[in-house]
Amino acid sequence: MPSSWRLQQAAIRRMLGRPRRPRIPHLRPGTAPGTLAAPGERTPSRITVLRYGSADLAEIEAKTVEEAIAALDQPGVTWINIDGLGEPEIMARLAERLHFHPLAVEDVFNVPQRPKVEAFGDHYLIVLRMLRLVPEIDEEQVSIFFGASYVVTVQERPGGDVFEGVRNRIRGSRGRLRATGPDYLAYALIDSVVDGYFPVLESLGERLDRLEDECVSANGTLLVPHIQALRRDFLTVRRAIWPTREALVSLQRDESHLVTPETRVFLRDCYDHAVEGIDIVETDRETAASVMEIYLSSQNQRLNEVMKVLTVIATLFIPLTFIASIYGMNFEYMPELKWRWGYPAALGLMALVASGLIYSFKRRGWW
Amino acid sequence: MPSSWRLQQAAIRRMLGRPRRPRIPHLRPGTAPGTLAAPGERTPSRITVLRYGSADLAEIEAKTVEEAIAALDQPGVTWINIDGLGEPEIMARLAERLHFHPLAVEDVFNVPQRPKVEAFGDHYLIVLRMLRLVPEIDEEQVSIFFGASYVVTVQERPGGDVFEGVRNRIRGSRGRLRATGPDYLAYALIDSVVDGYFPVLESLGERLDRLEDECVSANGTLLVPHIQALRRDFLTVRRAIWPTREALVSLQRDESHLVTPETRVFLRDCYDHAVEGIDIVETDRETAASVMEIYLSSQNQRLNEVMKVLTVIATLFIPLTFIASIYGMNFEYMPELKWRWGYPAALGLMALVASGLIYSFKRRGWW
Amino acid sequence: MPSSWRLQQAAIRRMLGRPRRPRIPHLRPGTAPGTLAAPGERTPSRITVLRYGSADLAEIEAKTVEEAIAALDQPGVTWINIDGLGEPEIMARLAERLHFHPLAVEDVFNVPQRPKVEAFGDHYLIVLRMLRLVPEIDEEQVSIFFGASYVVTVQERPGGDVFEGVRNRIRGSRGRLRATGPDYLAYALIDSVVDGYFPVLESLGERLDRLEDECVSANGTLLVPHIQALRRDFLTVRRAIWPTREALVSLQRDESHLVTPETRVFLRDCYDHAVEGIDIVETDRETAASVMEIYLSSQNQRLNEVMKVLTVIATLFIPLTFIASIYGMNFEYMPELKWRWGYPAALGLMALVASGLIYSFKRRGWW
Amino acid sequence: MPSSWRLQQAAIRRMLGRPRRPRIPHLRPGTAPGTLAAPGERTPSRITVLRYGSADLAEIEAKTVEEAIAALDQPGVTWINIDGLGEPEIMARLAERLHFHPLAVEDVFNVPQRPKVEAFGDHYLIVLRMLRLVPEIDEEQVSIFFGASYVVTVQERPGGDVFEGVRNRIRGSRGRLRATGPDYLAYALIDSVVDGYFPVLESLGERLDRLEDECVSANGTLLVPHIQALRRDFLTVRRAIWPTREALVSLQRDESHLVTPETRVFLRDCYDHAVEGIDIVETDRETAASVMEIYLSSQNQRLNEVMKVLTVIATLFIPLTFIASIYGMNFEYMPELKWRWGYPAALGLMALVASGLIYSFKRRGWW
Amino acid sequence: MPSSWRLQQAAIRRMLGRPRRPRIPHLRPGTAPGTLAAPGERTPSRITVLRYGSADLAEIEAKTVEEAIAALDQPGVTWINIDGLGEPEIMARLAERLHFHPLAVEDVFNVPQRPKVEAFGDHYLIVLRMLRLVPEIDEEQVSIFFGASYVVTVQERPGGDVFEGVRNRIRGSRGRLRATGPDYLAYALIDSVVDGYFPVLESLGERLDRLEDECVSANGTLLVPHIQALRRDFLTVRRAIWPTREALVSLQRDESHLVTPETRVFLRDCYDHAVEGIDIVETDRETAASVMEIYLSSQNQRLNEVMKVLTVIATLFIPLTFIASIYGMNFEYMPELKWRWGYPAALGLMALVASGLIYSFKRRGWW
Repeated sequence: MPSSWRLQQAAIRRMLGRPRRPRIPHLRPGTAPGTLAAPGERTPSRITVLRYGSADLAEIEAKTVEEAIAALDQPGVTWINIDGLGEPEIMARLAERLHFHPLAVEDVFNVPQRPKVEAFGDHYLIVLRMLRLVPEIDEEQVSIFFGASYVVTVQERPGGDVFEGVRNRIRGSRGRLRATGPDYLAYALIDSVVDGYFPVLESLGERLDRLEDECVSANGTLLVPHIQALRRDFLTVRRAIWPTREALVSLQRDESHLVTPETRVFLRDCYDHAVEGIDIVETDRETAASVMEIYLSSQNQRLNEVMKVLTVIATLFIPLTFIASIYGMNFEYMPELKWRWGYPAALGLMALVASGLIYSFKRRGWW
Repeated sequence: MPSSWRLQQAAIRRMLGRPRRPRIPHLRPGTAPGTLAAPGERTPSRITVLRYGSADLAEIEAKTVEEAIAALDQPGVTWINIDGLGEPEIMARLAERLHFHPLAVEDVFNVPQRPKVEAFGDHYLIVLRMLRLVPEIDEEQVSIFFGASYVVTVQERPGGDVFEGVRNRIRGSRGRLRATGPDYLAYALIDSVVDGYFPVLESLGERLDRLEDECVSANGTLLVPHIQALRRDFLTVRRAIWPTREALVSLQRDESHLVTPETRVFLRDCYDHAVEGIDIVETDRETAASVMEIYLSSQNQRLNEVMKVLTVIATLFIPLTFIASIYGMNFEYMPELKWRWGYPAALGLMALVASGLIYSFKRRGWW
Repeated sequence: MPSSWRLQQAAIRRMLGRPRRPRIPHLRPGTAPGTLAAPGERTPSRITVLRYGSADLAEIEAKTVEEAIAALDQPGVTWINIDGLGEPEIMARLAERLHFHPLAVEDVFNVPQRPKVEAFGDHYLIVLRMLRLVPEIDEEQVSIFFGASYVVTVQERPGGDVFEGVRNRIRGSRGRLRATGPDYLAYALIDSVVDGYFPVLESLGERLDRLEDECVSANGTLLVPHIQALRRDFLTVRRAIWPTREALVSLQRDESHLVTPETRVFLRDCYDHAVEGIDIVETDRETAASVMEIYLSSQNQRLNEVMKVLTVIATLFIPLTFIASIYGMNFEYMPELKWRWGYPAALGLMALVASGLIYSFKRRGWW
Repeated sequence: MPSSWRLQQAAIRRMLGRPRRPRIPHLRPGTAPGTLAAPGERTPSRITVLRYGSADLAEIEAKTVEEAIAALDQPGVTWINIDGLGEPEIMARLAERLHFHPLAVEDVFNVPQRPKVEAFGDHYLIVLRMLRLVPEIDEEQVSIFFGASYVVTVQERPGGDVFEGVRNRIRGSRGRLRATGPDYLAYALIDSVVDGYFPVLESLGERLDRLEDECVSANGTLLVPHIQALRRDFLTVRRAIWPTREALVSLQRDESHLVTPETRVFLRDCYDHAVEGIDIVETDRETAASVMEIYLSSQNQRLNEVMKVLTVIATLFIPLTFIASIYGMNFEYMPELKWRWGYPAALGLMALVASGLIYSFKRRGWW
Repeated sequence: MPSSWRLQQAAIRRMLGRPRRPRIPHLRPGTAPGTLAAPGERTPSRITVLRYGSADLAEIEAKTVEEAIAALDQPGVTWINIDGLGEPEIMARLAERLHFHPLAVEDVFNVPQRPKVEAFGDHYLIVLRMLRLVPEIDEEQVSIFFGASYVVTVQERPGGDVFEGVRNRIRGSRGRLRATGPDYLAYALIDSVVDGYFPVLESLGERLDRLEDECVSANGTLLVPHIQALRRDFLTVRRAIWPTREALVSLQRDESHLVTPETRVFLRDCYDHAVEGIDIVETDRETAASVMEIYLSSQNQRLNEVMKVLTVIATLFIPLTFIASIYGMNFEYMPELKWRWGYPAALGLMALVASGLIYSFKRRGWW
């Protein structure tokens, strides 16, 4: 019997019906701009502080926001990282101390925001979308504030991030990081986020290759939902990476003293990575569309095949059965029935008709 | 029997045939520009006036337009709201008092207009499209005039609006509203309209998710009209939000003294919201198109399935019936008919043929 | 029997085969630019002259071109309208008197031209496409020359136009028309042409709504040619309105003394109307494409339905007939045939098989 | 029997398999730029010289290139036309005399080049694609050099061109040609090439109209290859006309003393013609795509029709045959067989079933 | 029997499953920019040095990088070519000597990079993608550094390149190469890469032509994967050529003293070649899409044909068999069975029905 339709449907419904991320920021019409509220339930946030100069390094896990603020008064670059949006008052206190613009702070909590860069005189806000494989694609908003001597990063949810490499480079005193200002740290963080898109793209590319291989051998399995799910994932990456590219352009062009010319060169390199990523996304999206086409045409081919078999069998036996049914009639005066060679003659007639039909099928290339 | 085609058609016709909004502004070729006429029947308009400074607040429901005009002479910001286009003479009187440009006033009555911003020296006209869920999408034109000390809003139809939050913020003396000029009030109104798109988008997104779930389990129900109706609703939002974005760009760039630099920052934030909305609309439109594809391909799959069953059954029994009909012929000299084991042999032959066919189907993966 | 294919085809051929307008301007490779020739047969043209100032008004129907030229020497604004391109020498004489550029005059006769604005120092040429419902869409080229004291309009064919409203406003001394110069008259004429697109769009929109309603109830009628014909009409409007918008942009931007700043404001309004029209055309074109999709998918659905019925009937009866034909065989030794309950047993077997099949169809949702 | 598939295929293969023009210029990686070589076999080129001033005119057919070069030293405008690329040394000699840039000369021989304009200080190179109907579309590269006192045109192949009108205007001393410089002659030649696209477009448009008429009446003929061949021809025109438009823009904008302001006005007119042509190509391409859609949907409709007939016939007779085969069984105890009215009753039962089925088909609109 | 589905699938899987090139550069999130590592296993690189002035020429195969560096101190232009990325320390040493920017060096090793030009004060980095037919398309990254007196090229893999023509021109002292600086050499190398795209395009074009011919005669072979594989190859060329065009634009526009005005003219020519290539790629991609359409529609046509045959045969014989089965019933009282002419009458009735059906098929054009 044909493949179990019902079971497939259940599987597809499960696959498509997986809980979807909220796509719409929590803006309530009519509230004053700058109002802060945690997007989900209140959960405690984790605050980590990393303060460094070319010579010294201090790493603390702050219990209260005041501990973190104390670090800001000391020399060197201070990087405060807040994990989770559960405690808006932490951000409110930091914003007060560092004079963040109310709209900038609002953007941190109105997840998901479109990636962007906003300049506010003495500080910048960079909103990015961090993608990780855990092992599904995990999407998280990262907001990066940086000013003359500090970097503040806010992550949407507690849990891992893509900044471990940067932390290690600071700790290990490797590369330029320890000797440069907060603009370079901000660059390093942005670069980590952008570079983090590539493993995701690699995994999507592998899924694409696998689907491409399966789409011709697929035997009644519904590949379309898989292809569509893949396309949706490409769309997720696309929505993260395109505005990031725009943000990098505007950050490079902005003539602020907060970004040194040396860092601008590195930002250009980061921009190149983003363009590279866009290139891969767009090519893969096109390939995904063509995999769809191969699949649908192979399904069509299969229907053709099925119809041809039906036609050949039916067309062959319908006339033969007709002949047999003629001699199955019960008329009293049917001379053929009494002939000695009637039966062999009838069989011969059938063989003749069958041969003729088979010949004509062969000529048409249907056999 | 197959699903009731007729009943479905009736339902679809009802769904698609719901009275459509006029899409074409009531421009009569050859009339002089600036001619005013109510777009529908004459219905009384409602005039409400809200006058406030940082210290005081007055809220009156004006019986006549003169009452409203009287408020304009007092200090502070005066917000006159007109609900419904049924009495053009109210607007004509206001336009006379506040020197509105005839073309600007014409735009208020020629609904629907494309959202836009127009600068006329000492006043601005902002035309927006307000969307609300009541519970279907309700579309209404809002025209916002603002000058040095006043804001005049004109709504296409009486009934609710999305400005209640702004009114409450004025009444409650919350936020910056009471301390700032009419430009900030205008911003707050625009922001309310833009933020009002998000609940609509959320509801459309939910419909989309539901359709996506249904499209693989759909059992003969016609999903296409539902998908198309959803697409049309997305188109409605799109037509509201794209030109709003353009209008916000031109309002921000315009170097008029009527808009303070502080308000410009807020307009940029509002612009970001509009871009966010566009992003969601476009992604959802793409998803809607791919839901269509999944649905059509699942329909195709179903046809394939049906054809396969038909082929298997017909191909199996047609040759067997042929064999039976041979031995149903009435020839006198058919030696097999007299054999002792003729009948079992015929049945065996049939079983053999059937097994061969089933084996060949299995090899093709049709069984 | 199925719907009468032949009759339908005849109807479609008639519909599609209606005489098409020439789409290609009559340019002969190698002729010198500026050569004038009537595009069709020579037919007499009609010349009407309307001369007005803020106080006086003269309206004459000129017998010869010299009569019209005489009016040019008098004070006030002179509007010469030429109906039909049958007498090129009229235009040649006017061009000589008013120093029109030879290429400008050539454009008048090389119909159809793309709508455009061309500035020639002391005069402008505006080429537009006038659309009217009579009751099919009628397309006609209108060329508008205007200089310091005159407007010359040339219409491709005699017969009605969309300028009657403007004439009445001049005659009735209503609006600004009588008090302003030829630039404002030119604006009023352009505005009439642009506003004339909206009734056409309204009628196309109604056809679209009707097709949308029919496309699900269509019972074997071929809707595709109707949808395509509608699309072609949208294309006609589109080809008229897009370049008109561009022309209005370039007319507004051109820094000529021939266009006063007051008129520029009105031109901006006219530009807004054109954009509005483009918006409607594009949305409707998108809807037309989706109506096509609904129609095709509903046709597909119908085929599905048909195939399902065929499968159900054939699959049900083919095995039953096979059983019957077994017991129709004429073997001498078929014990069942002699059994007392053989016949009811055979019928019972058939009923059993039928029930099994029906149950399996029900489970698949085909019944 | 169905239409002769095999014959059609042969015809299509012939149609599609017609020898294709080389599409790729003959660039050999690594050769020094400026190397000249005939693109095909060496065939003698024909050199014609036309020298004229406002008063005099000389027309000679030069045997050697030196004869042509001699003409360059005389006053007036000299137009040297070379027919065929078979003798590269002619061009080399001319290039030496007139100081053509090596890359410019290379472009002449590397056919096909993309239409373009290149300025080289004291001379221009204009590369165009000349299209003619002979009676298929014939595509040929024309390279036009012009300097202060000369025009040199090089045609890819001997045989006709579209310049005969220009030659006649020079000979007949008609129009502005004799009184103006080489820039106007160059314009006249470009204009001839652009105007030459319109007869080609007209012929393609007629083929399109014919295909549109045929696509609904097509009875098993494969229209798709015809439509695709037409689309390919539109593509050919498109590839010629789009870059020509760009070239005209850059020629107009270039601030060289070689092009007088008067000629620029004519170039703008020529540009308008090119845009007109683009407009026609794009609209026709869109129509061609929609003709395809009509055709495919009419094919689909036909399949629907066929399936409906099959279903109606099969569904009607399969149950009837089943009834007949029941009473064809040979059971000994079948009481109905002995009834007096058994036979009429069986026929009646069949009639009843048939009526029921026909009624149900009618209700579904299949009959 | 229908074509061997299983064998085809195997072939397709092989074709599509060929090992794919890594598409994603080896960026590890969090590593410091400028870190070098061989992208694959460590394999020895080959270093060749070509030093030349207008008079002298030296060509050595350097054993160590120091040998190559020694050449840099001598007068004239030094071209160092490194084949293979297996020894990153060679590049590191060269970068140290020539002060390459760390990010530039990183780009060399992070293959595949998007083609681009980057200016770093005293040197340029040009990244290109070299395509060759060997005989499949072989893709390799080439990085070209050039400064005031040197050119350094780094190829991704050992093995052939497209620079042999340039080497021969240097050796043979032909053309401008020996007399000009490193900028002209860089141009010559870029030009070789760009010109190398054309043989690849020619071979793809031939495959396209072949597929076009086959797509109507294809008898059950699956052309879709072949078309898709071709499309993927076009995509490969497209991804190489589009950014190369952009890179050439930016190289031409850059106002660096490293590129002389003479070389800029040649770069413009090279740019023209790239545009030419893009033109061919885009046209061929469009043709490939339309070949797909022809193929799918011809498959559809074939299904139509098959269905028509089935319908004709089944519709013809089903009623005839029904008549025969009526007279095969065993009722005792069937008067027709006893008639003298019953049998011929039955046959006559069948002939009549058959004629009627055949006539009706003919009228529908199905026979």
